[in-house]
Amino acid sequence: LDAGDGAALAQLLDPLHPADIADILEHLDRKPRAALVRLYGAGFDGEILSELDESLREDVVGAMAPEVLAEAVRDLESDDVVDLIEDLETPQQEAILDALTAGDRVAVEQSLTYPEETAGRLMQREMVVAPEHWNVGQAIDHMRAHADLPDQFYHVIIVDPRMRPTGYVTLGRIMSHSRSTRLADLVDDSFRTIRASQDEEEVAYAFNHYHLISAPVVDADDRLVGVITIDDAMAILDEEHEEDILRLAGVGESRLLDGVFVTMKRRLPWLVVNLGTAALAALVIAQFEDTIAALVVLAVLMPIVATLGGNAGTQSLTVTVRGLATRDLTAANAWRVIRREAMVGVVNGLVLAVPLGLVTALIFGTFGIGAVIAAALVINLIVAALAGVMIPIVLEKLGVDPALASGTFVTTVTDVVGFFAFLGLAATVLI
Amino acid sequence: LDAGDGAALAQLLDPLHPADIADILEHLDRKPRAALVRLYGAGFDGEILSELDESLREDVVGAMAPEVLAEAVRDLESDDVVDLIEDLETPQQEAILDALTAGDRVAVEQSLTYPEETAGRLMQREMVVAPEHWNVGQAIDHMRAHADLPDQFYHVIIVDPRMRPTGYVTLGRIMSHSRSTRLADLVDDSFRTIRASQDEEEVAYAFNHYHLISAPVVDADDRLVGVITIDDAMAILDEEHEEDILRLAGVGESRLLDGVFVTMKRRLPWLVVNLGTAALAALVIAQFEDTIAALVVLAVLMPIVATLGGNAGTQSLTVTVRGLATRDLTAANAWRVIRREAMVGVVNGLVLAVPLGLVTALIFGTFGIGAVIAAALVINLIVAALAGVMIPIVLEKLGVDPALASGTFVTTVTDVVGFFAFLGLAATVLI
Repeated sequence: LDAGDGAALAQLLDPLHPADIADILEHLDRKPRAALVRLYGAGFDGEILSELDESLREDVVGAMAPEVLAEAVRDLESDDVVDLIEDLETPQQEAILDALTAGDRVAVEQSLTYPEETAGRLMQREMVVAPEHWNVGQAIDHMRAHADLPDQFYHVIIVDPRMRPTGYVTLGRIMSHSRSTRLADLVDDSFRTIRASQDEEEVAYAFNHYHLISAPVVDADDRLVGVITIDDAMAILDEEHEEDILRLAGVGESRLLDGVFVTMKRRLPWLVVNLGTAALAALVIAQFEDTIAALVVLAVLMPIVATLGGNAGTQSLTVTVRGLATRDLTAANAWRVIRREAMVGVVNGLVLAVPLGLVTALIFGTFGIGAVIAAALVINLIVAALAGVMIPIVLEKLGVDPALASGTFVTTVTDVVGFFAFLGLAATVLI
Repeated sequence: LDAGDGAALAQLLDPLHPADIADILEHLDRKPRAALVRLYGAGFDGEILSELDESLREDVVGAMAPEVLAEAVRDLESDDVVDLIEDLETPQQEAILDALTAGDRVAVEQSLTYPEETAGRLMQREMVVAPEHWNVGQAIDHMRAHADLPDQFYHVIIVDPRMRPTGYVTLGRIMSHSRSTRLADLVDDSFRTIRASQDEEEVAYAFNHYHLISAPVVDADDRLVGVITIDDAMAILDEEHEEDILRLAGVGESRLLDGVFVTMKRRLPWLVVNLGTAALAALVIAQFEDTIAALVVLAVLMPIVATLGGNAGTQSLTVTVRGLATRDLTAANAWRVIRREAMVGVVNGLVLAVPLGLVTALIFGTFGIGAVIAAALVINLIVAALAGVMIPIVLEKLGVDPALASGTFVTTVTDVVGFFAFLGLAATVLI
């Protein structure tokens, strides 16, 4: 790379999969990355851009010569182009759109009219369609006659005269039947359509739940507008999981490759919220300053009750958030799960409280303090279990992503209840 | 159901997708579930069993009449049978194996010889294979002649005379070329094989990374033994994510439908570990009992430093664990990420510490306590950032799943450092 030897570079990179070349680009610093992109030049495959982390795409597109960029995007399927340009700045978007053929450009622009994160953005326009009355032979002849079939397709979609999909036939079934078999007789019973306006999370769920391989996308009039394939659904499933896991930790949309400033900006808001909830907990403790002054050991023990409550709450919370995300937790079984969590809170509370109370009583030589910490722990674990399961359910009902906000609420509840129960009981019983 | 009207039940259930029937079974209590299974009887499709949550399968299989069970499993692909029986008790396994044809039984038993959670368990044995010298016409005739093609297949796998796969051709490309085209000329460049002994997590990663649709599985001698399709890889990806998210919360393998006792057993160990780490933190506080006795307000403020550190640590930790899971974080960029985290810790520490210090100083009317809490917070956020990124990296190097153990380590570090820094500084500066 330092020697500027383009031929040697091409020889190195050409045998690699675009996803691996994208990985290499992601590992490089900004300057050598731009140098590599310029040097690789004409060999640069459009799929490398698709594979690249979104945070770097703008950079890399900026480093590419316009004619290289045009060449690179021309071979992409329409859904990949949409995915590529939806996050770019307007001048870069224009450059890419200009590079497309008129037909592709229309397809991409139509997809962009659908809101972000909907099926309309995910679908590709390239598909194979057959009228209801065709037989296997006609379908095969039709495919042979068209050199520009999609790179990947798994079904022939059957449509009625008004372009409404009525079923689809897997290529495997077409292959294995005689030319005279009617397509309508081979229709796959896994067939379901997806609305272009549907949220992409629901699309991923449907693919995973019903084991779909591809699904036709229809507009508000039930007319066929595109097709979504399982590889895109898998990528969305991966993204949604990532989002959930990061949101649960209060990290928003963090990416491993973000710079210091972006990372800081994404994490700070949640820490500020947390500063507020920690101040609330401090306020509760402040009410008991006299109690603590009279018995300093309370300050030593109080974090134990709060911490265990926080962890137990996080356990219920995580199971609940997952249950909501996978649709296993519904109105029909919510009460069963809430009852179960409450029981677990009681049992775990007792199991932990008895030894904790005994050891505390032994260390400090009085029965009272042991009883107080044990009782406070049981109370806090029950509250933690209930908060952990009910807060996400309520947030979901209110239309807020439970992964995003539940954690703060739950630990605030367990901190406040933990300190209040422990210090309050101590103030009443011990002093 | 109460009326025992089997015909009406069948009429209700038959139009539903097996995945939806499995959902209904999951929502029922044990007794009505068994009643439904018995009443549905002969209509019971094997795929319902595959879709069912693992924790309920044993129950449902137990409720099925032997001949219904035999009928139900006979139509499943070999990978679904393997998935179904690997968690069952031996007598139930035998019952299912006995119901299979001799050929299927051998296939299933061979798959079961591979260790759990490897590619060998995931693969199906049903596949379409062609020798290297065939052309499109021969492949199509071969498929037409075989009525027992797999339900779903997307590639014809090309093998050399020793049954080693050398490439594959998508059905779409076979369709769109003339009968005389050699298969070898249509080979798809996404082709890669998977070893039967490979971990299923790596398989899911490869499918997601390289956008594979199906991949041939080879044994230690590179001979073709099966094929894995993307829908199975997607299910594994889903499971691995689930595992990570639950492990990060210290919930192990929890399922939403587990009973109280099972749930308790799965959550208690982590709470016990946490009791130990909380006791450690209490021990640190105990060293400063005299300091707290002299200045009780320290007890009020100390949880703020510890809590914020815990949350900042969880943020770095989660990003790091995800980076390791997606292989975006490697030895090549680990130092860059560690430096970035440390910088973010410094910056977020300062941004939060200045207002916190000022407000504290104002409320208590002395500059000293404000300076102490601000300094302790900066120290703890830097330590949190470093612990959050370095602990999972070290655990991964040691071969421990970082999702499983990192959380406890990181919050222990931030609690101990938080209390020690705040109380230690206070003892030195203020008293």
